[in-house]
Amino acid sequence: MRIQKNSATLHGEISTLENAGRLPGRLYKDCTMYTTLSPCHMCSGACLMYGIGRVVLGENVNFMGAEDLLRSKGVEVVNVEDAECKKLMSDFIRDRPEDWNEDIGE
Amino acid sequence: MRIQKNSATLHGEISTLENAGRLPGRLYKDCTMYTTLSPCHMCSGACLMYGIGRVVLGENVNFMGAEDLLRSKGVEVVNVEDAECKKLMSDFIRDRPEDWNEDIGE
Repeated sequence: MRIQKNSATLHGEISTLENAGRLPGRLYKDCTMYTTLSPCHMCSGACLMYGIGRVVLGENVNFMGAEDLLRSKGVEVVNVEDAECKKLMSDFIRDRPEDWNEDIGE
Repeated sequence: MRIQKNSATLHGEISTLENAGRLPGRLYKDCTMYTTLSPCHMCSGACLMYGIGRVVLGENVNFMGAEDLLRSKGVEVVNVEDAECKKLMSDFIRDRPEDWNEDIGE
């Protein structure tokens, strides 16, 4: 959404929570967050804020997020090491490095 | 924005980053995030993701966020212990407990 909406915050996980709408807090406790890539600090923090108990991620080869933080707070983190997710992201980074590096680039 | 926009993610800090728009990543390194209340895990994580070096918060009596995490990652955290911020939040929690508790309530 960085490109599609000029958004600085709508990563996949934030976008998912936003699209799910304004729900009662207790509902999140039984939810699993599924994401193609290891969640960054913002997105991991969003899971912690809502008390999401389980995060399933596609891969962490192309980017390692705050998995240790999630685990330290009792969240179950499952890395399925999916080949399609790895290729999706590595192809994107190779083809559009300026987009990949834009937000946290030096 | 939870009430105004039915938003599940637009806390003050996320809203600020969103409103600031799509900026080059290096610009955030010299920024200070100012916030009335100690930033929750999502908002602290957003500061970490962007490499914001300094967070100034109004108070942490009504809510203690992820200040320790920020400090552990090298972020300078300044609590100004502002009486007006404390009253603003305590009045809100007293007058609208159902709104305050909605997102992370049990």
